[in-house]
Amino acid sequence: MAIQAIERVFIETLAGSAPREVVLRGWVYRLRVLGKTAFLILRDCTGEAQCVLASEALKEHRLRAEDVVEVRGTVRPEPRAKAGCEVHVSEIRVLNRAAANLPFLSSHDTAEVGLETLVQYRPLALRTEAVGDVFRVQAALLAAFRQALDRRHFTEIVTSKIVGGGTEGGTSLFAIEYFDRVAYLAQSPQFYKEHGVAGFERVYETGHVYRAEPHASGRHLTEYYSLDIELGFIDGPEEVIQLERELLTEMFESLNGRLGPVLLKRRPERLPSLLGVPCWEFPECLQMLREAFGRTDLSEDLDPEAERQLCELARRATGVPAVFVLGFPLSARPFYTAPRGSAGAASSFDLLFEGVEITTGGQRLHRRQDLESALRSRSIDPQGFESHLAMFDLGMPPHGGLAIGLERLTCQVMGLPNVRQAALYPRDRYRLTP
Amino acid sequence: MAIQAIERVFIETLAGSAPREVVLRGWVYRLRVLGKTAFLILRDCTGEAQCVLASEALKEHRLRAEDVVEVRGTVRPEPRAKAGCEVHVSEIRVLNRAAANLPFLSSHDTAEVGLETLVQYRPLALRTEAVGDVFRVQAALLAAFRQALDRRHFTEIVTSKIVGGGTEGGTSLFAIEYFDRVAYLAQSPQFYKEHGVAGFERVYETGHVYRAEPHASGRHLTEYYSLDIELGFIDGPEEVIQLERELLTEMFESLNGRLGPVLLKRRPERLPSLLGVPCWEFPECLQMLREAFGRTDLSEDLDPEAERQLCELARRATGVPAVFVLGFPLSARPFYTAPRGSAGAASSFDLLFEGVEITTGGQRLHRRQDLESALRSRSIDPQGFESHLAMFDLGMPPHGGLAIGLERLTCQVMGLPNVRQAALYPRDRYRLTP
Repeated sequence: MAIQAIERVFIETLAGSAPREVVLRGWVYRLRVLGKTAFLILRDCTGEAQCVLASEALKEHRLRAEDVVEVRGTVRPEPRAKAGCEVHVSEIRVLNRAAANLPFLSSHDTAEVGLETLVQYRPLALRTEAVGDVFRVQAALLAAFRQALDRRHFTEIVTSKIVGGGTEGGTSLFAIEYFDRVAYLAQSPQFYKEHGVAGFERVYETGHVYRAEPHASGRHLTEYYSLDIELGFIDGPEEVIQLERELLTEMFESLNGRLGPVLLKRRPERLPSLLGVPCWEFPECLQMLREAFGRTDLSEDLDPEAERQLCELARRATGVPAVFVLGFPLSARPFYTAPRGSAGAASSFDLLFEGVEITTGGQRLHRRQDLESALRSRSIDPQGFESHLAMFDLGMPPHGGLAIGLERLTCQVMGLPNVRQAALYPRDRYRLTP
Repeated sequence: MAIQAIERVFIETLAGSAPREVVLRGWVYRLRVLGKTAFLILRDCTGEAQCVLASEALKEHRLRAEDVVEVRGTVRPEPRAKAGCEVHVSEIRVLNRAAANLPFLSSHDTAEVGLETLVQYRPLALRTEAVGDVFRVQAALLAAFRQALDRRHFTEIVTSKIVGGGTEGGTSLFAIEYFDRVAYLAQSPQFYKEHGVAGFERVYETGHVYRAEPHASGRHLTEYYSLDIELGFIDGPEEVIQLERELLTEMFESLNGRLGPVLLKRRPERLPSLLGVPCWEFPECLQMLREAFGRTDLSEDLDPEAERQLCELARRATGVPAVFVLGFPLSARPFYTAPRGSAGAASSFDLLFEGVEITTGGQRLHRRQDLESALRSRSIDPQGFESHLAMFDLGMPPHGGLAIGLERLTCQVMGLPNVRQAALYPRDRYRLTP
């Protein structure tokens, strides 16, 4: 047949079209030979297509799974094929070969493949359904987060990750050789987002933060992606909590709509509404944990077991295993935290969702003199924070905010036990590659 | 009057409403006293409202510009006010005071204020119209970039900024003390986005990149925000160029729609369509520069003056001062660049827009053996890149991509001469704060 200059089309455009000649490009996902006829399942970023060709042609091109190919043929309706059509191949062209001895194939069940291997061979892992789904969901969470905030008068900001010091004391910082000086990787955009409130009233940032955590648990990374929000003119932390209820509900609705079937592979039900998530005071939580689970060992903070137990209590009370815990002891929270009452509680909260803390937030101090007192009461010289404190002279509204760890949120949404499964290139004490 | 629990409303909701009692919160933008009556222009993140009160009340509260206040009053139609209504104040509450001696006020003309001061007092600078506009435009560019790619089957990825080595040789890297090892800040997500193509076919990332540039010009930062794209199954760099034409045109249309009046404060016209931007080969550019401007000093690369001159030639030819330059000498481009023909040219392009290079892009090599040869021809041992090269065994499509510097793009769109004006917290050789 004569060679026609027709353009490559995406696989998603094939369904329902009248018979026509098409050019497809993608990866060989599966090959099946039935006597003289062979079936090639081809995948691109929009879907998969069943291609029919002579078994002879497969052999001639020495085709293997994961090869990168161009297929030319005629698309015809075929009710037995998944997409309702199939492509009768007239010509096939290998664009690039995959190696013969791959550690796994994109059609394999990744449950059989170790996490180390899935990280080491990320491109191949992303072509599997299970790992690909994780990062498609992550991208959808990010998009929905930003859109929900854009609708609410928030402005996205981009702040520096190279800083002169830490926001929460001097520990857990990575040092950088910055020409002839020492700088540090930012632990959090906390100060910058507070400054942003004094400028724009409502700001958010999505970006990396860095913690030189020496332990390498299933919950900690040295580099993670933080969804940071800060807003001004609030009356109390309850306003931040209510914002998060609405925000996450909107994000979850967006995911249910766009990726519902993907979610149902990993969860018994779609993502819940969080509009009814209760807010329990910290002392109340300790009492409930004592009564329901005999926990008498907690006083200053929750531990992972307590987080699971509180989610279980929330599930019994509301049907959704999620709860805001408000009023942690002030002494355990950063200096900029606003107090809650006068009994040593903080206007600070965590959101526990399906057993894990995914957010820390709260109201901050907004008066310079209160920040100075808070620093002095922790035996820190306010002079060391002067450049930050000076921003509170410029017209700083009462404000609060929160931060959501993207990897942890992805894990909870997708039912993953290890945060490394939700980072494309996880970094921890021992892992610096790929 | 009795205290009613009514909620704070945004200023944008006032216009056109029937007379009603409202609570507003915001910053005192301007104060004007006319005998016994005073006018307070209040600003929040949605707009500004003219508030009328007794001059006595101003004095009593010792109100000053930039103070953070809550205003309670009755909104009434007032055709002479900017928003078509004004608020008759019944009660005013100071939420936080601004200091008495501010370096400038948000109502001032920032052209009178030095860049150093605008950076040092970012919150106040963001409340000025001119600086606020820059970062609102920047946020809108980011949102439009992501949305245009989401519509085109791209998946957003998040890749590590802590890496074992550089993508373009070993220079200009910032070293990090990573526990007992040395790591580096990523210069570019180049390798990761290529790996992403082998997984998802079309990927993008928006994030920081780091260059230890010892010079501190108006065009360079040590930390900048890169809009990175990479896509598979291309036939040549022209496909990447066409994508960028469409992408930027869509982004510019979005900006014209959302922020048209803001753009017109800084530009004679709205942002142009880039669909007709020509693509000129590098040797052709040298010849045109020779003929039109007598430039005989260029051979391997363009300089800033040549970039301006080419944009001028493009403007004369098409009406829009923008041009793609394709086919730079291969020797001046990174090892992973695909060749263009056999005469030493690269399948690599720059986009020059209004006198400045805002994009570098091109087609990459996609076969392991070609990459190994390219490394050897530069006297680099491929073994040092083995973990990267191994990814090319997993089914790597022909691919290409581009990167846009967000700060530079913001500068060009807003007509700013110095890239520091388009970074909230610029970092260079000498600047590590705020």
